[in-house]
Amino acid sequence: MNIQVVPTAQQAQGIDFSGKIAVVIDVLRATSVITTALDNGAREVIPVKTVDEAQSLYDKGDTVNTLRGGERNALKIEGFDLGNSPLEYKKKTVEGKTLILTTTNGTNAINNVKGADEVVLACFRNAAAVASVIARRNDEAIQKDSDLSGLPRFARNDIIIVCAGTEGRFSLDDGLCAGMLIELLKQKTEVETDDLGLLLAHYYDSSNANLLGALSGCAHLKRLFTLGFYDDIRFCLETNCVSMVPVVRGERIYPLMK
Amino acid sequence: MNIQVVPTAQQAQGIDFSGKIAVVIDVLRATSVITTALDNGAREVIPVKTVDEAQSLYDKGDTVNTLRGGERNALKIEGFDLGNSPLEYKKKTVEGKTLILTTTNGTNAINNVKGADEVVLACFRNAAAVASVIARRNDEAIQKDSDLSGLPRFARNDIIIVCAGTEGRFSLDDGLCAGMLIELLKQKTEVETDDLGLLLAHYYDSSNANLLGALSGCAHLKRLFTLGFYDDIRFCLETNCVSMVPVVRGERIYPLMK
Repeated sequence: MNIQVVPTAQQAQGIDFSGKIAVVIDVLRATSVITTALDNGAREVIPVKTVDEAQSLYDKGDTVNTLRGGERNALKIEGFDLGNSPLEYKKKTVEGKTLILTTTNGTNAINNVKGADEVVLACFRNAAAVASVIARRNDEAIQKDSDLSGLPRFARNDIIIVCAGTEGRFSLDDGLCAGMLIELLKQKTEVETDDLGLLLAHYYDSSNANLLGALSGCAHLKRLFTLGFYDDIRFCLETNCVSMVPVVRGERIYPLMK
Repeated sequence: MNIQVVPTAQQAQGIDFSGKIAVVIDVLRATSVITTALDNGAREVIPVKTVDEAQSLYDKGDTVNTLRGGERNALKIEGFDLGNSPLEYKKKTVEGKTLILTTTNGTNAINNVKGADEVVLACFRNAAAVASVIARRNDEAIQKDSDLSGLPRFARNDIIIVCAGTEGRFSLDDGLCAGMLIELLKQKTEVETDDLGLLLAHYYDSSNANLLGALSGCAHLKRLFTLGFYDDIRFCLETNCVSMVPVVRGERIYPLMK
């Protein structure tokens, strides 16, 4: 399995995703929010780029069963139902609901990945579940190809991990999660990765599972800390505690049917 | 001092460099070649984007005292005088000459940095000299500002390090050199850096000065190795052996007058 890592949502724009599995990561906080919302029973998530787009979509739909969530400058958008804290997305709030979400980095990253065979969303909370899904997909692809050609085949450049980043710049929280994902996949199959993937896997490996320590200098984490989002940070840095894998189908995100 | 690190030449295009010192790094091999050529007495280097542009500039000029150098797909360009191996740029070959250079990544990176107060070129061979120049420039800027305002001032976001990368992707050789530069600057002054800078400084710090080991997985290094450029790699990974700091003035590169 070959894994390419893209440092920012912006850099994903020029990439050909056809034939690939794409993994989008925005640890703080969009992919943590989406994973949590779906795990707590939200029906679907619609990621949109602008606040106006979110509002207009909401106005046109079933407002009783729809929630508007997201952030600008890390804070809740005026008039919206929910902010960008995963702790707000409890079962009693989101169960059975459609969620329209707009965030500065994460929803853009999701919308920038076009044409992949499959787009899944990862964060620390579901990293092991995502790694299992990817490994299985890879096995299936090899098996299918082998059945067709009669020869075993090892798919190359299968996975592209897109780190959302923060306002066009690489963000270490997303990178550390990419590193964790690579390390998890290395336990399951033979992995080749690019220079950024090597660097991030090494950093995750050297963090000795102290994620908060490894991210102590991370600009985006420091900003959330300054704004008082301690509980969000702690929640988003919990690892492998849910099996929910969000998957993008068309313009919407659903729980993956495994 | 605040240091931003840009992962690829392409990402440098959208950045406002005004008021900043830019450092361009293409360890394998453009900035190692330019540093070596100027250190061995070349008069100036003209970095150009295309082979046609290089040839046309050559045809219009003093062909006796001009050399055409560079690479495509890591190999010497047909009809050119020199390739992209720093070992070719010996004193007897380059002394007093103008060098027109076109490479796939490095010369593009140099040409993508526009509007900076100063653009210097770094590689492992001149990293300590570059760090000294940057630290002195920073002291001068603080002193000047302090003289004007009567108050001490600590310039922010002073330095932008542009890693050339390889064909649009981050390359660990350039990143490791950026990490070394950050570590050298930390010995001289207070440094703040972005998430990529933190990661690269950590990686350099954990490499225990075994650069070849730290770069063993680097795709670009492996490619040069496969092509047989062992001596180039060894030469480019020698650290702090020259005091030459190439600086860009207009469209040309000269030795910095310190």
